[in-house]
Amino acid sequence: MTAADTQPLRLGIAGLGTVGAGVVKIIQRHADLLAARSGRPIAITAVTARDKLKNRDVDLSSYHWAADPLALAQSDEIDVFVELMGGHEGAAREATEAALRAGKDVITANKALLAHHGHELARLAEDNGRVIRFEAAVAGGIPVIKTMTESLAGNAIRRVMGVMNGTCNYILTRMESAGLPYETVFEEARQLGYLEADPTLDVGGIDAGHKLAILSAIAFGTEMNFDAVEIEGIERVSIDDINRAADMGYKIKLLGVAQMTARGLEQRMSPCLVPADSPLGQLQGGTNMVVVEGDAVGQIVLRGAGAGEGPTASAVMSDVVEIARGVRLPTFGQPASGLARAQAARTAVPAAYYIRLHLADKPGALAKVASVLGDAGISIDRMRQYGHGDGTAPVLIVTHKTTPEAVDHAIAELPKTGVIVGEPVELRIEEV
Amino acid sequence: MTAADTQPLRLGIAGLGTVGAGVVKIIQRHADLLAARSGRPIAITAVTARDKLKNRDVDLSSYHWAADPLALAQSDEIDVFVELMGGHEGAAREATEAALRAGKDVITANKALLAHHGHELARLAEDNGRVIRFEAAVAGGIPVIKTMTESLAGNAIRRVMGVMNGTCNYILTRMESAGLPYETVFEEARQLGYLEADPTLDVGGIDAGHKLAILSAIAFGTEMNFDAVEIEGIERVSIDDINRAADMGYKIKLLGVAQMTARGLEQRMSPCLVPADSPLGQLQGGTNMVVVEGDAVGQIVLRGAGAGEGPTASAVMSDVVEIARGVRLPTFGQPASGLARAQAARTAVPAAYYIRLHLADKPGALAKVASVLGDAGISIDRMRQYGHGDGTAPVLIVTHKTTPEAVDHAIAELPKTGVIVGEPVELRIEEV
Repeated sequence: MTAADTQPLRLGIAGLGTVGAGVVKIIQRHADLLAARSGRPIAITAVTARDKLKNRDVDLSSYHWAADPLALAQSDEIDVFVELMGGHEGAAREATEAALRAGKDVITANKALLAHHGHELARLAEDNGRVIRFEAAVAGGIPVIKTMTESLAGNAIRRVMGVMNGTCNYILTRMESAGLPYETVFEEARQLGYLEADPTLDVGGIDAGHKLAILSAIAFGTEMNFDAVEIEGIERVSIDDINRAADMGYKIKLLGVAQMTARGLEQRMSPCLVPADSPLGQLQGGTNMVVVEGDAVGQIVLRGAGAGEGPTASAVMSDVVEIARGVRLPTFGQPASGLARAQAARTAVPAAYYIRLHLADKPGALAKVASVLGDAGISIDRMRQYGHGDGTAPVLIVTHKTTPEAVDHAIAELPKTGVIVGEPVELRIEEV
Repeated sequence: MTAADTQPLRLGIAGLGTVGAGVVKIIQRHADLLAARSGRPIAITAVTARDKLKNRDVDLSSYHWAADPLALAQSDEIDVFVELMGGHEGAAREATEAALRAGKDVITANKALLAHHGHELARLAEDNGRVIRFEAAVAGGIPVIKTMTESLAGNAIRRVMGVMNGTCNYILTRMESAGLPYETVFEEARQLGYLEADPTLDVGGIDAGHKLAILSAIAFGTEMNFDAVEIEGIERVSIDDINRAADMGYKIKLLGVAQMTARGLEQRMSPCLVPADSPLGQLQGGTNMVVVEGDAVGQIVLRGAGAGEGPTASAVMSDVVEIARGVRLPTFGQPASGLARAQAARTAVPAAYYIRLHLADKPGALAKVASVLGDAGISIDRMRQYGHGDGTAPVLIVTHKTTPEAVDHAIAELPKTGVIVGEPVELRIEEV
């Protein structure tokens, strides 16, 4: 360790919301611990945020208040630009680029920025001999970036899966436990402050999709391709489906799955059924879980808080200590210049499917449904028909493994039989 | 990256059992992947093992066969000495020390060596400007060392817990699922090759105790103190206790717990009850789980295969790639010279306890038992008395939180009442 390495590592923090304040608190509370672990002191030298006067419950008086993120990013007072503003364009992007060009390392919790511009940012960092670290961008306090880029470096990754939006998991588990419809629980979540300003980012699966795109790039050594993630939110998940799935031994989760196939890289974020007794099925409330499958290690499951001040700040501090120790890692587990552009593939990996429909009270109705499935090449594993309550009979079908294409075809054909009331619902049953 | 950093990293592997062969296979299979991720090729240059002629199902013909581990450790042909022999004295220790003195970095999977001599080895490494890495020493493929030393570096660790001996967990879960006594399942495990040559290392809790001592040192920044781990094996866990615990909603696990208290560092490895629906309670078979609680991150749960060729070799490769990337980390998360000598404390943290005893068929028997507990200051949360089958009545008691001291006292007093048949059994119920 050279003399320079024992100088304080000087941080400039842009964005002092929940996460930013959490980082400041950790650095103030654990100065000695951090210095012992890093081999040098960690110092905040400058900060900035939209509103200087807001009460943040932390003492910022000893830090220089920079005029704006861009000024902070280029300040001579900092070694590392810590970007905790959010947003994939505008100030966050400009300041991040400026920081790299000015020879600063960057730590960011910004999944949207990485999902949209991660590849260019990684190249910019490499061109300038700088690093970008982003443990906090995926699954909060869970060390998934470090695990994938470092711990599993000896593995060819087969598949990565995850429940990575705590708000969606809260909504789905709360619907089940309280027996409430989606709209009611959505409103509860809004009032509890669990939703982003634009709630579509959460319930539309976009935030989780950003995270999946980042994990895919690392897992398969490919350029980030967020646009190719097939995304479906949880808005169409009904309490009926949650209850019926439970009857069959499943839970419904907003599950991200990325896997490399002979046809290309499949990335999807969608409501899926998983076995109720699997680790993913047992996940309650806002907790996140990431499951990684490697050819040597088998299946690794990581579980923890996916959001919140402490967990997210903990992940930021992991990156801070890493840089303070002098560790320089390639952004996505290998140099960005070496990442292949993956062929994106729509989901084609076969799976079992859950189909729910309502039969009209007509003779031979079930036979017609069975016939449509048979014609589509879909065989039935389990079926349940419930009584005709309101004149229609709910029918649940769990298929044997089949292709998404066959299911889409059958779902399109079913209404044409004239024996179905309303639209049939289909959900993929992911093998976990 | 300097020119020297793009030279191959040259490994010398001592020990070619399951794990050693697994490492060779990964390096042969994933040469390109490893080079891309490391920024340089990974090369095995020399190997050694007890028996040169044994068929290992891997091609070793292109590697120099060193005469013995000591010669390999000092060989000019290697940069990193990979110690996969095992044993905490003799060849493993001598060769590891020799390698560090000869300026080699060391990677080891040897938990016994670290638990007994980790502190001196870390100091020796530091004195020689070398690193020792040991991800494979604890919980196989689960990245617990990296998570604790790096990902949670911003946290004061409150508690670390784990099921870290797959063989014991296999035995306990198999006893429950098959309804078989300990002796029968122990014999099964022996025949399946799940047990160490000296099975006491497994079922006596020693192997798991080694791992706990390593995690404690990292978690609390203290010198390794394996001798202070309170260790109890699973030999006295009966199928009766497993069944009765299940009746009350618990599973029995060989659980390690380390926590810092005002009185000192508590480290214990013992059979405990945990809630059946907790992640630890749901752990089946040979799978391992580590739970870490940090002041910022909350609870992180890591789960995966704790042993076996692929998972353990995956962990070794994590260390190999780390060193190849030029990453130099302090052995136990901070320099060994800075580790405090912790005051060791016997378990005093209060907990609920499970007590099982057999009442003689005498009037007032239960009152006498209740009175002994009351006199010891123990209050009862739940109690079940079963029918007098063979003339004695099994009684299960779950206490409210109490001290181990109070429980020990009550257990010693109970037989003196004259209403108890045989010895009472007590097990701690760990809050997880």
